[in-house]
Amino acid sequence: MNDATPPKSPPIVQTPRNTLQRLSRRASYSREVINAILDDAYTTVISALVEGAVRAQPIYYWRIGDELFVHGSRHNALFKALLDGQEACLTVALLDGLVMARSAFHHSMNYRSVVIYARPREVTGEAERMEVLKQSVERLSPGRWAEIRKPSEPELRGTMILAFPIAEASAKAREGGPVDDPDDYGLPVWAGVLPCSIAFGEPEEDANTQPPV
Amino acid sequence: MNDATPPKSPPIVQTPRNTLQRLSRRASYSREVINAILDDAYTTVISALVEGAVRAQPIYYWRIGDELFVHGSRHNALFKALLDGQEACLTVALLDGLVMARSAFHHSMNYRSVVIYARPREVTGEAERMEVLKQSVERLSPGRWAEIRKPSEPELRGTMILAFPIAEASAKAREGGPVDDPDDYGLPVWAGVLPCSIAFGEPEEDANTQPPV
Repeated sequence: MNDATPPKSPPIVQTPRNTLQRLSRRASYSREVINAILDDAYTTVISALVEGAVRAQPIYYWRIGDELFVHGSRHNALFKALLDGQEACLTVALLDGLVMARSAFHHSMNYRSVVIYARPREVTGEAERMEVLKQSVERLSPGRWAEIRKPSEPELRGTMILAFPIAEASAKAREGGPVDDPDDYGLPVWAGVLPCSIAFGEPEEDANTQPPV
Repeated sequence: MNDATPPKSPPIVQTPRNTLQRLSRRASYSREVINAILDDAYTTVISALVEGAVRAQPIYYWRIGDELFVHGSRHNALFKALLDGQEACLTVALLDGLVMARSAFHHSMNYRSVVIYARPREVTGEAERMEVLKQSVERLSPGRWAEIRKPSEPELRGTMILAFPIAEASAKAREGGPVDDPDDYGLPVWAGVLPCSIAFGEPEEDANTQPPV
Protein backbone atom coordinates (compact mmCIF):
# COMPACT_ATOMS: atom_id res chain seq x y z
CA MET A 1 0.00 0.00 0.00
CA ASN A 2 1.50 3.33 -0.94
CA ASP A 3 0.36 6.91 -0.65
CA ALA A 4 -1.05 6.94 -4.14
CA THR A 5 -3.63 4.26 -3.30
CA PRO A 6 -4.87 4.83 0.24
CA PRO A 7 -7.19 2.18 1.69
CA LYS A 8 -10.77 2.95 0.84
CA SER A 9 -13.01 3.28 3.87
CA PRO A 10 -16.33 1.47 3.78
CA PRO A 11 -19.30 3.80 3.48
CA ILE A 12 -21.27 4.93 6.48
CA VAL A 13 -24.31 2.70 6.85
CA GLN A 14 -27.63 4.51 6.85
CA THR A 15 -30.35 2.70 8.80
CA PRO A 16 -33.83 3.82 9.90
CA ARG A 17 -32.63 4.71 13.38
CA ASN A 18 -29.55 6.71 12.39
CA THR A 19 -31.45 8.56 9.68
CA LEU A 20 -32.43 11.88 11.16
CA GLN A 21 -36.14 12.54 11.16
CA ARG A 22 -36.12 16.05 12.53
CA LEU A 23 -34.38 18.93 10.69
CA SER A 24 -32.85 16.42 8.29
CA ARG A 25 -31.26 19.21 6.23
CA ARG A 26 -28.75 19.52 9.08
CA ALA A 27 -27.71 15.86 8.82
CA SER A 28 -24.74 14.28 7.09
CA TYR A 29 -23.72 10.67 6.53
CA SER A 30 -20.32 11.51 5.03
CA ARG A 31 -17.34 9.83 6.66
CA GLU A 32 -15.27 12.94 5.99
CA VAL A 33 -17.73 15.17 7.85
CA ILE A 34 -18.09 12.69 10.71
CA ASN A 35 -14.32 12.23 11.10
CA ALA A 36 -13.68 15.97 11.10
CA ILE A 37 -16.07 16.42 14.03
CA LEU A 38 -14.63 13.44 15.91
CA ASP A 39 -11.10 14.82 15.53
CA ASP A 40 -12.09 18.18 17.03
CA ALA A 41 -13.46 16.82 20.33
CA TYR A 42 -11.94 14.90 23.21
CA THR A 43 -14.84 13.30 25.05
CA THR A 44 -17.77 11.15 24.08
CA VAL A 45 -20.70 9.91 26.15
CA ILE A 46 -21.14 6.14 25.93
CA SER A 47 -24.70 4.98 26.69
CA ALA A 48 -25.75 1.35 27.10
CA LEU A 49 -27.90 -0.98 29.14
CA VAL A 50 -26.17 -2.09 32.34
CA GLU A 51 -28.11 -4.52 34.51
CA GLY A 52 -31.36 -3.52 32.88
CA ALA A 53 -31.02 0.26 33.23
CA VAL A 54 -29.66 2.80 30.78
CA ARG A 55 -26.34 4.17 31.97
CA ALA A 56 -24.11 6.76 30.40
CA GLN A 57 -20.49 7.72 30.95
CA PRO A 58 -18.45 10.63 29.60
CA ILE A 59 -15.00 9.41 28.55
CA TYR A 60 -11.88 10.40 26.59
CA TYR A 61 -11.65 8.92 23.09
CA TRP A 62 -9.46 9.01 20.06
CA ARG A 63 -9.96 7.96 16.45
CA ILE A 64 -7.75 5.77 14.28
CA GLY A 65 -9.07 5.18 10.78
CA ASP A 66 -12.65 3.97 10.91
CA GLU A 67 -12.67 3.13 14.61
CA LEU A 68 -13.15 5.13 17.77
CA PHE A 69 -11.12 4.00 20.80
CA VAL A 70 -11.64 4.36 24.55
CA HIS A 71 -9.71 2.87 27.42
CA GLY A 72 -10.26 2.38 31.08
CA SER A 73 -10.17 0.00 33.98
CA ARG A 74 -10.83 -3.65 33.44
CA HIS A 75 -13.41 -3.32 36.27
CA ASN A 76 -15.54 -0.71 34.48
CA ALA A 77 -19.14 -1.98 34.64
CA LEU A 78 -20.15 -0.30 31.37
CA PHE A 79 -17.20 -1.88 29.53
CA LYS A 80 -18.18 -5.28 30.90
CA ALA A 81 -21.77 -4.91 29.71
CA LEU A 82 -20.57 -3.93 26.23
CA LEU A 83 -18.26 -6.93 25.99
CA ASP A 84 -21.18 -9.09 27.12
CA GLY A 85 -22.96 -8.01 23.94
CA GLN A 86 -24.82 -4.81 24.80
CA GLU A 87 -24.88 -2.21 22.09
CA ALA A 88 -23.55 1.30 22.70
CA CYS A 89 -24.84 4.64 21.55
CA LEU A 90 -21.97 7.12 21.46
CA THR A 91 -22.46 10.86 21.16
CA VAL A 92 -19.95 13.63 20.55
CA ALA A 93 -21.11 17.24 20.67
CA LEU A 94 -19.19 20.46 20.10
CA LEU A 95 -20.86 23.73 21.04
CA ASP A 96 -19.92 26.42 18.51
CA GLY A 97 -22.16 29.30 19.53
CA LEU A 98 -25.30 30.61 21.16
CA VAL A 99 -27.73 31.93 18.58
CA MET A 100 -29.60 34.97 19.87
CA ALA A 101 -32.73 35.62 17.83
CA ARG A 102 -35.30 38.41 17.93
CA SER A 103 -37.95 36.02 19.20
CA ALA A 104 -37.73 33.51 22.05
CA PHE A 105 -38.75 30.68 19.75
CA HIS A 106 -35.89 31.09 17.28
CA HIS A 107 -33.09 31.13 19.83
CA SER A 108 -30.80 28.25 18.98
CA MET A 109 -27.29 26.88 19.20
CA ASN A 110 -24.58 26.34 16.65
CA TYR A 111 -23.05 22.92 17.12
CA ARG A 112 -21.50 19.89 15.45
CA SER A 113 -22.48 16.48 16.75
CA VAL A 114 -22.03 12.81 15.90
CA VAL A 115 -24.07 9.81 17.01
CA ILE A 116 -22.71 6.28 16.53
CA TYR A 117 -24.44 2.97 17.24
CA ALA A 118 -21.90 0.20 17.68
CA ARG A 119 -20.77 -2.90 19.51
CA PRO A 120 -17.08 -2.70 20.38
CA ARG A 121 -14.31 -5.25 20.09
CA GLU A 122 -11.69 -5.49 22.78
CA VAL A 123 -8.21 -4.72 21.52
CA THR A 124 -6.15 -7.65 22.77
CA GLY A 125 -3.08 -8.10 20.58
CA GLU A 126 0.06 -6.86 22.29
CA ALA A 127 1.40 -4.94 19.29
CA GLU A 128 -1.95 -3.37 18.45
CA ARG A 129 -2.54 -2.39 22.07
CA MET A 130 0.79 -0.58 22.24
CA GLU A 131 0.18 1.18 18.91
CA VAL A 132 -3.33 2.23 19.93
CA LEU A 133 -2.11 3.59 23.27
CA LYS A 134 0.64 5.44 21.43
CA GLN A 135 -1.99 7.20 19.32
CA SER A 136 -3.97 8.17 22.44
CA VAL A 137 -0.99 10.24 23.56
CA GLU A 138 0.28 11.36 20.15
CA ARG A 139 -3.13 12.83 19.50
CA LEU A 140 -2.63 15.22 22.41
CA SER A 141 0.93 16.18 21.53
CA PRO A 142 2.68 14.71 18.47
CA GLY A 143 6.10 13.31 19.34
CA ARG A 144 5.27 12.86 23.00
CA TRP A 145 5.23 9.05 22.96
CA ALA A 146 8.99 8.96 22.38
CA GLU A 147 9.60 11.08 25.50
CA ILE A 148 7.43 9.42 28.15
CA ARG A 149 7.71 6.14 30.01
CA LYS A 150 5.81 3.45 28.12
CA PRO A 151 3.16 1.33 29.87
CA SER A 152 4.52 -1.39 32.13
CA GLU A 153 3.22 -4.96 32.16
CA PRO A 154 1.00 -4.45 35.24
CA GLU A 155 -0.36 -1.17 33.81
CA LEU A 156 -1.19 -2.89 30.53
CA ARG A 157 -2.89 -5.80 32.32
CA GLY A 158 -5.23 -3.46 34.18
CA THR A 159 -6.18 -1.44 31.10
CA MET A 160 -9.02 -2.40 28.79
CA ILE A 161 -9.12 -0.91 25.29
CA LEU A 162 -12.33 -0.94 23.27
CA ALA A 163 -12.64 -0.18 19.55
CA PHE A 164 -16.01 0.92 18.15
CA PRO A 165 -16.60 0.73 14.39
CA ILE A 166 -17.66 4.09 12.95
CA ALA A 167 -20.26 2.71 10.57
CA GLU A 168 -23.86 3.20 11.72
CA ALA A 169 -23.18 6.87 12.30
CA SER A 170 -24.55 10.28 11.52
CA ALA A 171 -23.50 13.88 11.95
CA LYS A 172 -25.71 16.86 12.65
CA ALA A 173 -24.70 20.50 12.65
CA ARG A 174 -26.06 24.01 12.71
CA GLU A 175 -24.12 27.10 11.72
CA GLY A 176 -24.83 30.72 10.90
CA GLY A 177 -26.93 33.48 12.41
CA PRO A 178 -30.49 33.52 13.68
CA VAL A 179 -33.39 32.94 11.31
CA ASP A 180 -36.29 35.03 12.54
CA ASP A 181 -39.84 35.51 11.35
CA PRO A 182 -40.04 38.32 8.75
CA ASP A 183 -42.07 40.60 11.02
CA ASP A 184 -39.51 40.39 13.85
CA TYR A 185 -36.51 41.89 12.04
CA GLY A 186 -37.54 45.39 13.00
CA LEU A 187 -37.51 44.73 16.76
CA PRO A 188 -35.00 46.87 18.68
CA VAL A 189 -33.04 43.97 20.18
CA TRP A 190 -29.49 42.77 19.56
CA ALA A 191 -29.48 39.60 17.48
CA GLY A 192 -26.58 37.46 16.36
CA VAL A 193 -24.25 34.73 17.50
CA LEU A 194 -22.12 34.46 20.62
CA PRO A 195 -19.39 32.17 19.22
CA CYS A 196 -17.75 29.72 21.57
CA SER A 197 -15.20 26.94 21.43
CA ILE A 198 -12.88 24.81 23.53
CA ALA A 199 -9.99 27.18 24.25
CA PHE A 200 -6.63 26.22 25.74
CA GLY A 201 -4.92 28.48 28.24
CA GLU A 202 -1.24 28.78 29.14
CA PRO A 203 0.31 25.37 29.91
CA GLU A 204 0.80 24.90 33.66
CA GLU A 205 4.05 23.04 34.31
CA ASP A 206 4.08 20.54 37.16
CA ALA A 207 6.82 21.70 39.52
CA ASN A 208 6.62 18.61 41.76
CA THR A 209 9.67 16.40 42.03
CA GLN A 210 7.77 13.62 43.74
CA PRO A 211 4.10 12.52 43.93
CA PRO A 212 1.93 14.99 45.88
CA VAL A 213 0.69 13.66 49.21
CA MET B 1 -41.60 32.77 51.88
CA ASN B 2 -39.05 35.57 52.12
CA ASP B 3 -35.37 35.89 51.40
CA ALA B 4 -34.38 35.16 54.97
CA THR B 5 -35.85 31.66 54.86
CA PRO B 6 -35.17 30.21 51.43
CA PRO B 7 -36.86 26.91 50.62
CA LYS B 8 -34.76 23.98 51.72
CA SER B 9 -33.91 21.61 48.91
CA PRO B 10 -34.36 17.91 49.51
CA PRO B 11 -31.11 15.99 49.76
CA ILE B 12 -29.59 14.19 46.82
CA VAL B 13 -30.60 10.53 46.97
CA GLN B 14 -27.73 8.08 47.04
CA THR B 15 -28.58 4.69 45.54
CA PRO B 16 -26.37 1.72 44.59
CA ARG B 17 -26.23 2.73 40.97
CA ASN B 18 -25.44 6.40 41.45
CA THR B 19 -22.81 5.62 44.07
CA LEU B 20 -19.48 5.70 42.30
CA GLN B 21 -17.52 2.48 42.54
CA ARG B 22 -14.37 3.59 40.76
CA LEU B 23 -12.18 6.44 42.10
CA SER B 24 -14.86 7.24 44.63
CA ARG B 25 -12.69 9.95 46.20
CA ARG B 26 -13.55 12.05 43.15
CA ALA B 27 -17.29 11.76 43.76
CA SER B 28 -19.71 14.17 45.40
CA TYR B 29 -23.38 13.92 46.32
CA SER B 30 -23.69 17.54 47.41
CA ARG B 31 -26.47 19.52 45.77
CA GLU B 32 -24.29 22.62 45.87
CA VAL B 33 -21.47 20.91 43.99
CA ILE B 34 -23.88 19.35 41.48
CA ASN B 35 -25.70 22.65 40.84
CA ALA B 36 -22.46 24.56 40.33
CA ILE B 37 -21.42 22.15 37.58
CA LEU B 38 -24.86 22.21 35.96
CA ASP B 39 -24.82 26.02 35.89
CA ASP B 40 -21.46 26.11 34.09
CA ALA B 41 -22.50 23.97 31.11
CA TYR B 42 -25.08 24.37 28.36
CA THR B 43 -25.65 20.89 26.95
CA THR B 44 -26.51 17.53 28.40
CA VAL B 45 -26.77 14.14 26.75
CA ILE B 46 -30.10 12.42 27.43
CA SER B 47 -29.95 8.63 27.12
CA ALA B 48 -32.97 6.32 27.23
CA LEU B 49 -34.53 3.26 25.66
CA VAL B 50 -36.45 4.10 22.48
CA GLU B 51 -38.20 1.20 20.79
CA GLY B 52 -35.94 -1.28 22.54
CA ALA B 53 -32.59 0.32 21.73
CA VAL B 54 -30.52 2.76 23.74
CA ARG B 55 -30.55 6.18 22.13
CA ALA B 56 -28.81 9.36 23.19
CA GLN B 57 -29.27 12.98 22.24
CA PRO B 58 -27.20 16.08 23.06
CA ILE B 59 -29.50 18.96 23.96
CA TYR B 60 -29.55 22.44 25.54
CA TYR B 61 -30.72 22.55 29.14
CA TRP B 62 -31.19 24.98 31.97
CA ARG B 63 -31.69 24.57 35.70
CA ILE B 64 -34.36 26.11 37.91
CA GLY B 65 -34.14 25.08 41.55
CA ASP B 66 -33.98 21.32 41.87
CA GLU B 67 -35.04 20.58 38.32
CA LEU B 68 -33.27 20.46 34.99
CA PHE B 69 -35.30 21.59 31.95
CA VAL B 70 -35.09 20.78 28.26
CA HIS B 71 -37.39 21.69 25.43
CA GLY B 72 -37.94 20.59 21.89
CA SER B 73 -40.41 19.51 19.31
CA ARG B 74 -43.53 17.65 20.32
CA HIS B 75 -42.53 15.04 17.69
CA ASN B 76 -39.18 14.21 19.33
CA ALA B 77 -39.06 10.38 19.61
CA LEU B 78 -36.89 10.44 22.74
CA PHE B 79 -39.26 12.84 24.51
CA LYS B 80 -42.18 10.57 23.64
CA ALA B 81 -40.43 7.51 25.06
CA LEU B 82 -39.68 9.38 28.29
CA LEU B 83 -43.28 10.49 28.69
CA ASP B 84 -44.32 6.88 28.07
CA GLY B 85 -42.41 6.00 31.23
CA GLN B 86 -38.85 5.31 30.15
CA GLU B 87 -36.17 6.48 32.55
CA ALA B 88 -33.46 8.87 31.40
CA CYS B 89 -29.80 8.98 32.26
CA LEU B 90 -28.52 12.54 31.83
CA THR B 91 -24.84 13.42 31.70
CA VAL B 92 -23.14 16.80 31.78
CA ALA B 93 -19.37 16.98 31.33
CA LEU B 94 -17.02 19.95 31.36
CA LEU B 95 -13.46 19.44 30.18
CA ASP B 96 -11.09 21.56 32.28
CA GLY B 97 -7.70 20.37 31.12
CA LEU B 98 -5.48 17.72 29.61
CA VAL B 99 -3.15 16.24 32.22
CA MET B 100 0.23 15.43 30.71
CA ALA B 101 2.14 13.00 32.91
CA ARG B 102 5.65 11.57 32.66
CA SER B 103 4.29 8.11 31.94
CA ALA B 104 1.67 7.09 29.38
CA PHE B 105 -0.42 5.42 32.08
CA HIS B 106 -0.86 8.53 34.23
CA HIS B 107 -2.06 10.84 31.48
CA SER B 108 -5.50 12.04 32.48
CA MET B 109 -8.07 14.79 32.14
CA ASN B 110 -9.33 17.43 34.50
CA TYR B 111 -13.10 17.58 34.31
CA ARG B 112 -16.34 18.16 36.19
CA SER B 113 -19.27 15.90 35.41
CA VAL B 114 -22.76 15.13 36.66
CA VAL B 115 -24.90 12.06 36.08
CA ILE B 116 -28.63 12.14 36.85
CA TYR B 117 -31.14 9.29 36.69
CA ALA B 118 -34.66 10.60 36.38
CA ARG B 119 -38.09 10.35 34.84
CA PRO B 120 -39.33 13.74 33.64
CA ARG B 121 -42.66 15.45 34.01
CA GLU B 122 -44.05 17.46 31.15
CA VAL B 123 -44.50 21.12 32.03
CA THR B 124 -48.07 21.86 30.97
CA GLY B 125 -49.44 24.81 32.93
CA GLU B 126 -49.56 27.96 30.84
CA ALA B 127 -48.02 30.21 33.47
CA GLU B 128 -45.28 27.77 34.39
CA ARG B 129 -44.44 27.14 30.76
CA MET B 130 -43.98 30.85 30.11
CA GLU B 131 -41.86 31.30 33.23
CA VAL B 132 -39.70 28.29 32.39
CA LEU B 133 -39.14 29.50 28.82
CA LYS B 134 -38.28 32.93 30.20
CA GLN B 135 -35.53 31.37 32.29
CA SER B 136 -34.16 29.50 29.27
CA VAL B 137 -33.40 32.86 27.66
CA GLU B 138 -32.56 34.83 30.81
CA ARG B 139 -29.88 32.26 31.54
CA LEU B 140 -28.07 33.24 28.34
CA SER B 141 -28.42 36.96 28.82
CA PRO B 142 -30.18 38.44 31.87
CA GLY B 143 -32.79 41.01 30.88
CA ARG B 144 -33.19 39.66 27.37
CA TRP B 145 -36.71 38.27 27.86
CA ALA B 146 -38.11 41.78 28.14
CA GLU B 147 -36.63 42.74 24.76
CA ILE B 148 -37.56 39.83 22.52
CA ARG B 149 -40.86 38.72 21.04
CA LYS B 150 -42.53 36.24 23.37
CA PRO B 151 -43.68 32.83 22.11
CA SER B 152 -46.89 32.88 20.09
CA GLU B 153 -49.72 30.41 20.60
CA PRO B 154 -48.69 28.16 17.66
CA GLU B 155 -45.05 28.22 18.81
CA LEU B 156 -46.08 27.22 22.31
CA ARG B 157 -48.31 24.43 21.03
CA GLY B 158 -45.44 22.83 19.12
CA THR B 159 -42.97 23.04 22.00
CA MET B 160 -42.64 20.34 24.62
CA ILE B 161 -40.95 21.19 27.91
CA LEU B 162 -39.65 18.43 30.19
CA ALA B 163 -38.52 18.85 33.80
CA PHE B 164 -36.16 16.27 35.33
CA PRO B 165 -35.83 16.10 39.13
CA ILE B 166 -32.20 16.48 40.25
CA ALA B 167 -32.35 13.85 42.97
CA GLU B 168 -30.69 10.55 42.08
CA ALA B 169 -27.59 12.41 41.03
CA SER B 170 -23.84 12.43 41.49
CA ALA B 171 -20.90 14.61 40.55
CA LYS B 172 -17.38 13.52 39.69
CA ALA B 173 -14.38 15.74 39.18
CA ARG B 174 -10.62 15.71 38.81
CA GLU B 175 -8.38 18.70 39.28
CA GLY B 176 -4.69 19.42 39.70
CA GLY B 177 -1.50 18.25 38.05
CA PRO B 178 -0.28 14.81 37.07
CA VAL B 179 0.42 12.20 39.74
CA ASP B 180 3.30 10.10 38.49
CA ASP B 181 5.15 7.11 39.92
CA PRO B 182 8.04 8.22 42.16
CA ASP B 183 10.72 6.89 39.81
CA ASP B 184 9.36 8.83 36.83
CA TYR B 185 9.80 12.37 38.20
CA GLY B 186 13.38 12.52 36.91
CA LEU B 187 12.42 11.88 33.27
CA PRO B 188 13.33 14.75 30.91
CA VAL B 189 9.81 15.35 29.62
CA TRP B 190 7.48 18.30 30.10
CA ALA B 191 4.68 17.45 32.53
CA GLY B 192 1.76 19.53 33.65
CA VAL B 193 -1.72 20.60 32.65
CA LEU B 194 -3.02 22.10 29.41
CA PRO B 195 -6.00 23.99 30.87
CA CYS B 196 -9.07 24.39 28.70
CA SER B 197 -12.56 25.77 28.96
CA ILE B 198 -15.54 26.96 26.95
CA ALA B 199 -14.44 30.39 25.70
CA PHE B 200 -16.68 32.99 24.09
CA GLY B 201 -15.40 35.08 21.22
CA GLU B 202 -16.52 38.49 19.96
CA PRO B 203 -20.32 38.62 19.48
CA GLU B 204 -21.24 38.48 15.77
CA GLU B 205 -24.20 40.77 15.09
CA ASP B 206 -26.77 39.57 12.57
CA ALA B 207 -26.88 42.24 9.86
CA ASN B 208 -29.86 40.70 8.05
CA THR B 209 -33.03 42.72 7.79
CA GLN B 210 -35.06 39.78 6.57
CA PRO B 211 -34.77 35.99 6.80
CA PRO B 212 -31.85 34.59 4.75
CA VAL B 213 -32.94 32.56 1.71
